[in-house]
This record gives sequence, C-alpha cells and structure tokens, in this order.
Amino acid sequence: MRISIIGSGNVATHISAALKNAGHRIVQVYSRNLHNAALLAYHVGAEATDNLNALTTDTDIFIVSVKDDAILDTVKQLDKYGKLIAHTSGAVELTPMLELTQQAGVFYPLQTFSKTKELNFRDVPMCIEGADEAITKTLENLARDISNNVSRISSAQRKVLHLAAVFACNFTNHLYGVGEGLLKDSGMSFNLLRPLIAETADKIKEHSPFTVQTGPAVRNDESTMAAHLQLLDKQPHLQDVYKMLSQDIIKNHNKVNGDR
Amino acid sequence: MRISIIGSGNVATHISAALKNAGHRIVQVYSRNLHNAALLAYHVGAEATDNLNALTTDTDIFIVSVKDDAILDTVKQLDKYGKLIAHTSGAVELTPMLELTQQAGVFYPLQTFSKTKELNFRDVPMCIEGADEAITKTLENLARDISNNVSRISSAQRKVLHLAAVFACNFTNHLYGVGEGLLKDSGMSFNLLRPLIAETADKIKEHSPFTVQTGPAVRNDESTMAAHLQLLDKQPHLQDVYKMLSQDIIKNHNKVNGDR
Repeated sequence: MRISIIGSGNVATHISAALKNAGHRIVQVYSRNLHNAALLAYHVGAEATDNLNALTTDTDIFIVSVKDDAILDTVKQLDKYGKLIAHTSGAVELTPMLELTQQAGVFYPLQTFSKTKELNFRDVPMCIEGADEAITKTLENLARDISNNVSRISSAQRKVLHLAAVFACNFTNHLYGVGEGLLKDSGMSFNLLRPLIAETADKIKEHSPFTVQTGPAVRNDESTMAAHLQLLDKQPHLQDVYKMLSQDIIKNHNKVNGDR
Repeated sequence: MRISIIGSGNVATHISAALKNAGHRIVQVYSRNLHNAALLAYHVGAEATDNLNALTTDTDIFIVSVKDDAILDTVKQLDKYGKLIAHTSGAVELTPMLELTQQAGVFYPLQTFSKTKELNFRDVPMCIEGADEAITKTLENLARDISNNVSRISSAQRKVLHLAAVFACNFTNHLYGVGEGLLKDSGMSFNLLRPLIAETADKIKEHSPFTVQTGPAVRNDESTMAAHLQLLDKQPHLQDVYKMLSQDIIKNHNKVNGDR
C-alpha cells in the first residue's frame, strides 16, 4: 500500500518503520514541525510536509498519529482527500470520526514506545476497528503485515483495554516504586528487587496470574501480614494500600476456590 | 567447601546445583523423605540420608533449606555437629538461631524458584548475615562463587525486603490478574496485555520506577479517571483500588516534583 503518516512522534516513528520494513511504501510524512517531519521522512524514504492542505493524493491511507485531542480536528481536514483514514489511539472512539468521514478506522498498537528503545513490532498487539467490513479487512491485513498479534477490538472494548492496562501496567509500576522507596528508607538498593520483579513478569507469559499468585495474603498468613502492617506504622497510606490489596487477594482466592 | 544440604525443595535444588557448578562439593543431602533426598543427591553427586542424627561430620557447612517453621527445630538438632549452619529463608531472624548455636548465618537467595524453570543463578541477589565477621565473610565468599549480586543484609533489613517484595511482586501479580479479569469480561484475551506488561517490567531494569510512571493519574487526567470509574460501577471494590492507587500516584508525583 501507499501510506501517508500524519504525525512524527513515537508511535508514528515505530509504525512507519514497521510498515516500510514489511514492504509498504511511505509516501509522505506530515508534521506541524517541518524539521520533525523531515527527520522521520528521511528514515522511511518519504517526502516531508508541514502543510495539511496540500498533501499528495497519490496515497491509499492516512495513518493519523497525533495527540488524542487533535485527532478529530485533523480528520476533519483530511476528509477532502477522499481516502481511508485510521487513527492510532487507544482512547478515541470511532463514532465521532464517522461524523466527519465515511472511510474511518482505528489502527491501534497496544504498546508503550520510546524513540530510543528498539522493540520487535511483530510482538505488538494491533487493535483494529473499521467503519465497515471492507475497511476492517484492509486494516487487518495491513496490521498482519507488521504484527503476529492482530485483533478486532470495538471502541467499547478499547476503553476496557485501556482500563485493564492502567491496573496491570500503570499501577504495577507505581508499586515497583513503592518497593524501591521502602528499600531506600532502610539503606538497601533497588537492585535487590529487580530480578524478582523480572521473574514475576516473566511467569505470566505462560500462566494466568491468579494461578501463580504467591505471598502472605494468598496463604492467609495473618502473622506475617500483621508484622508488615506494623513495619508500615509511619506510612498510614501504604498501610491502607497493603490492607486493601491483601483483602482483595484473599477475597479473590476464596472466590477462585469456591469456598465462600 | 564441603557442603551438606538440609532439605530437597526448590531452593535446596537450585542452590546445591549452583554450588556444585561453582566447584564446591555437595557431600550429603538430607530430607525427611529419602526418595526426595536421593533424587537431589543423584543430581549433585552427593550421598542421600533421611536421618538427621547420623549426618556425616566430614563437612564444612549445613545449608538449611526447610520450611520456615521447621528451621529452628532443625538447627537445634544440627548444633551437636559443631559446624557452621546457615538457613536460606527471608523471614526467619538470626537472633533466635543464636540461642541454639554460635555458628549461625543466613544465606538467602531473593528469587522465586520452581524446579522446572531454569534460571541464571548469577543474577540472583544473595542476602548474607552472620553471627560474627568471620562467618559473614565465609558466607559472603560462598555467595560470590554463585552470584554477582551479593549484599550484607541484617535481619531488620530482610523484613523490609520481604515487605517491599510483597508490594512490587505479589501485589503486582494480583493486578495482572485484575487486568486479565477485565479483559475476559469484555471478551478479550490476556494476550493483548502481555507484551505491555513485559515492557513495563523491562523499563525498570534501567530506570527508577517513579521516573517512568505513565497513565492518567500521573497526568492528573481527571476525565479519563472518571470514565474508568464509571466502567467499574459494577465492581465497587475495584473502584476503591483504582481510587486509592490513583490518589497515591498523584500524591507521590506532587511530592517528587515538590509542588505541594
């Protein structure tokens, strides 16, 4: 396919490189900042532009990878070209796009990207949604060219996906930080905990998390939990987090094992 | 060194293999269950026994890798041999051991082991404590033979370490499970989230977690957080977890950035 990339950020950079490597042609890269457009365009052998009103029409699809709150405005300006338009956001629904164009879709890579960190795009889950079956199929095929993990995900599902990612990634990262803080306060390095964190994440590559839960809560080891709360007596908010998550683990364990 | 292994579980298995590979001699493996003792003994070229009262005295150290609540009882029975005794537990303090023997220490590998999963022992953090400087040095040297990550950790620190591991590993695994549950309820596979979880854990190998925190809470994106709480309106306990952890992230972010 002939592809135009609208945007020059992390997602635009990784997606356009993956599409080019899969044999597609990136014809043009747009950015408000011509320098940024030129940088990415150079890497993928495309033309650079900062003019949204004079884009080449010799293209099959606009992939819109701009900030969430700029997506609809951008789509409005792209509609005149009469091409397929897909955005790459986890948060923007399809319905408001459909009020601006008939040929709308979502081409959402569920991963956290940084320009400096290499990553195998074939492992990146691609979440596809289209205004109709033909568009969905087109986007699905394009996604399969760059990833082994392609799913049709509705806007309603995408919302839940984002919420699940907040629990499983944003909140877990915060808890890594809580662990680091506790170690620091007692004169220990976070390096002590890094291998165990890596192994914990590694385990769920093959297992369902609740089946490999460990720790005092799932054993209902009350004396250890009491000792831990005692250690936290100067940090009441961490006590609250400890209590709530432990109770949640116990409740969940009882439910899974049906002895409630 | 000539080493006797007391126990035949996961930790005993991994530690004795690592020590043997480092050139030490495993002379004897004890287990209450002779079959289990024989299995491990065979792998490390040792003798097997199920008699704690007739162990060989031609050894330099007993490494006691039995259940936490059996450690002190075992140590009591080993004292008569007059050798160095070190346990491998994160939870048992040194002080009660010292009431049973002078030659006591801790040789604690901070990792989660399973017999079937290979793992590079050189990455396993070894936490060392000894009754005196000579014992500490001996255990430290032994630990350096099998790991690149050796620290002197007091009993008081070990308690905090365990607590930090509960936050950074046990609680995070639970949150992985919460994420899986949310996806399942909306007809999606956990495979969508697995790569993002892996990348989140990978990031903190080089960074301090609070410096790479992402998500709606750290951006104080109130409309997204309100939408997420709305999605959880049938699961009030998850709403509570969401609120508490988000508030903790916001509070922590303000503290880190000093604008409180």
